[in-house]
Amino acid sequence: MFTEKLNKRIDAVDSMLCVGLDPDLKRLPEHISRDAAGVTAFCRAIVDTTAPYVCAFKPQIAYFAGAGLEKALEDTIAYIREKHPDIVVILDAKRGDIGSTAKQYAKEAFERYQADAVTLSPYMGFDTIEPYFAYEGRGVILLCRTSNPGGADIEELVTKDGDMVYERVAKLAAGPWNVNGQVGLVVGATQPAEIARVRALAPATPLLVPGIGAQGGDVDAAVAAGLDAEGRGMIINSSRAVIFAGQGEDFAQAAAQAAKTTRDAIRAAKTKARG
Amino acid sequence: MFTEKLNKRIDAVDSMLCVGLDPDLKRLPEHISRDAAGVTAFCRAIVDTTAPYVCAFKPQIAYFAGAGLEKALEDTIAYIREKHPDIVVILDAKRGDIGSTAKQYAKEAFERYQADAVTLSPYMGFDTIEPYFAYEGRGVILLCRTSNPGGADIEELVTKDGDMVYERVAKLAAGPWNVNGQVGLVVGATQPAEIARVRALAPATPLLVPGIGAQGGDVDAAVAAGLDAEGRGMIINSSRAVIFAGQGEDFAQAAAQAAKTTRDAIRAAKTKARG
Repeated sequence: MFTEKLNKRIDAVDSMLCVGLDPDLKRLPEHISRDAAGVTAFCRAIVDTTAPYVCAFKPQIAYFAGAGLEKALEDTIAYIREKHPDIVVILDAKRGDIGSTAKQYAKEAFERYQADAVTLSPYMGFDTIEPYFAYEGRGVILLCRTSNPGGADIEELVTKDGDMVYERVAKLAAGPWNVNGQVGLVVGATQPAEIARVRALAPATPLLVPGIGAQGGDVDAAVAAGLDAEGRGMIINSSRAVIFAGQGEDFAQAAAQAAKTTRDAIRAAKTKARG
Repeated sequence: MFTEKLNKRIDAVDSMLCVGLDPDLKRLPEHISRDAAGVTAFCRAIVDTTAPYVCAFKPQIAYFAGAGLEKALEDTIAYIREKHPDIVVILDAKRGDIGSTAKQYAKEAFERYQADAVTLSPYMGFDTIEPYFAYEGRGVILLCRTSNPGGADIEELVTKDGDMVYERVAKLAAGPWNVNGQVGLVVGATQPAEIARVRALAPATPLLVPGIGAQGGDVDAAVAAGLDAEGRGMIINSSRAVIFAGQGEDFAQAAAQAAKTTRDAIRAAKTKARG
């Protein structure tokens, strides 16, 4: 079960840090070859050195698909599952399509790539989410309020009931759409007030929070806003600031150091928030 | 240019039919092998026999990705571009992600797969659409009002200004988001009243209209609602009803017959609508 595995891992290593695996070919260390073997080796090295500090890894499928490197994604996730089976794997795919097509995307995420959870768009409604529940215990994490500049364009439209669109998504995800207890929400770290709002609407929902590090989110504010009653409930993602921390032969050690520093900042923020 | 190529093709063959390439392994004719070679052969055969009747082909990437058959998708689109260069290729991907990630998806759609246009989700806002405009002349087709049962969950939320969410998307797509004149909208065929509403808000925007055939949309009503002032402006998609029309050795001829029948129904609907 996605949420149980997540909570167990968060407790085991006292970390809510997720490391995002976005192997941008333009930013890989120079000595790494720009092919499936190189990208897989890069990801494996990052995975091994950062593993002690994380609750989850989040491969971003676009970086693999853009370069035709699906094989590297398959191999990277298989490696995580073999060597670090307690760490949650979230496939960041943001898919969203009608039922018969959603079945294919669910197969992609859960059979082909063997992810524990997948990110999805809520735009097309519940029947585009439902097919993923056929995979028992797997998680779906719905886009809610994202941290990008245009995030407000649609997500913050105010409905006539007074809810913004993202608030409606939060209510649905915490309520009628949460058929298996394995539904999470994406809320950007750069909007602590909105994290707090989502937490109020969805008290027990795991929040995937991107935007720490390269995107400039404030860790203290985000953690204070998003912790659940048990002092967990957050998966705080850093991608580029960790995986591209170093450009030399010791890139994986530099990544580990960045991961440790970020984990410590999250831990400190949690201690502060819990008083 | 996507729209120019589309209009030219619509006029050349007097057809607004788009055939969706959704090679569901469970529904392929029995004699087709369930691998990249088989799927490519299936798609090529359908493409060749249905080409005279279509303005566009729309491969649905999920069916390729779910089965690990990206190679078949690459080969199918390369084949269309080589043998039928006047026919528009729309990659149905419904991607949506922050700028740096969107660049990778744009690369996937336009460099790797060489599509003329790609479907996208508007949920995360304008800066998640913008990177696609870096590819001059390529089209982006935004989800607006979809034909699935849950389509109303988010798309029909009424905002305090009185617009539904999908109406806001239509206005954005026809206005500030249409920076290159190559922006289209997805509107399901099963909701003619909503097609008419989108057409009113976006008079010159090409509408990709799925839901004819297997999904049961009424061709006459959809066409009457969606035609633009020039009697074009629609890309009416049928997938399963065409490509799985036959299960025998003559499956491609059966598909051609189904495509021709659907094209004729669209033509007749157009004549009726234009009086």
